[in-house]
Amino acid sequence: MKVTPWEVEGEVDYSKLVKDFGVSLINDRIKKRLDGTHPLLRRGIYFSHRDFDKWLDNHDKKMKVSVITGRGPSERMHLGHLVPFLVAKSLQDSFNCNVYIPISDDEKFYVKENLTFDDALEYSKDNILDLIALGFKPKRTFIFEDFVYTKMYKYAGMIAKRITYSTAKAAFGLKNESNIGWSFYPAMQAAHILFPQFNEGRHLSVVPIGIDQDPFIRLTRDIADHKDFNFEKPAALHAKFIPSLHGNPKMSSSKEGSIFLSDSKREVEDKIKKYAFSGGGSTIKEHKEKGGNPDIDVSYQYLRMFFEPNDNKLKKIYDDYKSGKLLTSEIKEILIVKLNKFLEEHQDKREEAKDKLREFMLKN
Amino acid sequence: MKVTPWEVEGEVDYSKLVKDFGVSLINDRIKKRLDGTHPLLRRGIYFSHRDFDKWLDNHDKKMKVSVITGRGPSERMHLGHLVPFLVAKSLQDSFNCNVYIPISDDEKFYVKENLTFDDALEYSKDNILDLIALGFKPKRTFIFEDFVYTKMYKYAGMIAKRITYSTAKAAFGLKNESNIGWSFYPAMQAAHILFPQFNEGRHLSVVPIGIDQDPFIRLTRDIADHKDFNFEKPAALHAKFIPSLHGNPKMSSSKEGSIFLSDSKREVEDKIKKYAFSGGGSTIKEHKEKGGNPDIDVSYQYLRMFFEPNDNKLKKIYDDYKSGKLLTSEIKEILIVKLNKFLEEHQDKREEAKDKLREFMLKN
Repeated sequence: MKVTPWEVEGEVDYSKLVKDFGVSLINDRIKKRLDGTHPLLRRGIYFSHRDFDKWLDNHDKKMKVSVITGRGPSERMHLGHLVPFLVAKSLQDSFNCNVYIPISDDEKFYVKENLTFDDALEYSKDNILDLIALGFKPKRTFIFEDFVYTKMYKYAGMIAKRITYSTAKAAFGLKNESNIGWSFYPAMQAAHILFPQFNEGRHLSVVPIGIDQDPFIRLTRDIADHKDFNFEKPAALHAKFIPSLHGNPKMSSSKEGSIFLSDSKREVEDKIKKYAFSGGGSTIKEHKEKGGNPDIDVSYQYLRMFFEPNDNKLKKIYDDYKSGKLLTSEIKEILIVKLNKFLEEHQDKREEAKDKLREFMLKN
Repeated sequence: MKVTPWEVEGEVDYSKLVKDFGVSLINDRIKKRLDGTHPLLRRGIYFSHRDFDKWLDNHDKKMKVSVITGRGPSERMHLGHLVPFLVAKSLQDSFNCNVYIPISDDEKFYVKENLTFDDALEYSKDNILDLIALGFKPKRTFIFEDFVYTKMYKYAGMIAKRITYSTAKAAFGLKNESNIGWSFYPAMQAAHILFPQFNEGRHLSVVPIGIDQDPFIRLTRDIADHKDFNFEKPAALHAKFIPSLHGNPKMSSSKEGSIFLSDSKREVEDKIKKYAFSGGGSTIKEHKEKGGNPDIDVSYQYLRMFFEPNDNKLKKIYDDYKSGKLLTSEIKEILIVKLNKFLEEHQDKREEAKDKLREFMLKN
């Protein structure tokens, strides 16, 4: 097994990761507090954390808490990209807290050799519409792009002084031939994570993040309580990997392995039917006899993670698929219908978001 | 001889530098155009250049030209710090062009381990008053601090993508244990030099600079005409080193070796009398017999560079000192009177500058 911010290889052993990274599993006490939240949270896709118990306690003590999760803009967003934002929105709904969404147009520009500056800004505008469409609260949600809300340079600069090139190199895999924007970016990312505290003063902010990104959280936690800042170390909520349609451990932006938020009904239907990895028998006869395996079936997993919030209904799908009563074509059809309903609504809300930009974007 | 942006050692051989750096001496044709400008320009303290002939030609063809010269803010400014600004003002007066003055609070913050963020901003405010006091034209002069006019991050980011860490390391002497703000700064500095073109579109801008800083100009010239920018390669005017009171080749910020702009009349008198390196004989008798050497006499040099604009009067001082007619105590007295008059006026204008800040500072 190999899990770094750039690579995931082999069978992922999450208990080993928890031990290696020194993070905590989400225990029953926390789980109880996640009743009524998004399936990604309450069904254990977010499985470990740093200081999230303290975050909940602070909330209960009426202390300020917030959520921060960012996006490196790409040409178009797919379902997997939504994961931390669905969680951020759910936390906002359940705990009525502020959500900060940094858009790292700078990171993408530095890292992608062929990405032009104008395209980086264009992708940001596009992706921001998808985020607003999720239904964040206007006065409690702050979205900003590094190359537009350039005030971030001040905060990143303060932090940059406390990160040596060696440290950045190790955490971000920098090379001598990498450009110096890239080598500065670790400071900007830490500034994103600490921005809720720069903006509202010292308080506990949680970062929903893939477990592979935890090294960046550690880097920021090491800096947060430096005397220059005297901030709380940020909390984190770690997600397991969301499988691609093909069942690969991490959803990529490949055309066939992902559901894009802009996909048409027809495209969704085609992709699910053609590519969604099946845990069913290889023939209908075999499936009816031996049953299917929902734990590796991508359609079932997407229903569990995103599209079937009703636990009883989900259990019935699980049982029926496992027993062989529900066929692969049928579970795929359930997913197709639900996914297309979600995308139809999303695409409408995305249109409406165009008039709401001003309510969400931070200004220099 | 060793001349780098960080070190000057040994006897400086300027003709060798011109050859090594591949720059051009200021020739008679250019010199003619500098009639009536500040002594630093017309008396050859600025001795070499890149494309300054083209800058003058462009001005004559009514094309836009500008000047850009920056300042890394320090606790207080001394006479040597004024050199490029006196030249910038003189070029503005003679050629009626815009002057850009970036204040690199970020650079000083990154490089000086013990400098706090607040002090860096404080020093900027202080130094800016000294610059405005020089009499720049309000609508033609633009001053900005990187941590305040953070829009610079956008331009620096565009440039950062085109500078590898290796290149920055070589040009700026970065080490692995240097912080990543420092490793980003080469991009910010190039953004300063190109800012007149980011702001007003493609045109030729000249940078008055110490000859030791030329490597930074070369770095920026290499980037300027990249297809992302399509800018003119910036021109440069190179100064020789301004000697310290002790006669060392480069004026430092040591308390005794420099005249600070905030010095009192008494301090100036004391320092000149005690420390100003003399080219005179070791006794009055010897001086009267053998004469003095104005070429190494710091008092004479300061008169030549800054305080005696009248060529005839300066020549008389030169001749009288050389013949021994003018004593060391007398040439020091001439300098003390002129220097104190300059500082008195400067300190008054600095007070007035406090009300003029808004006319000069760029806003995000």
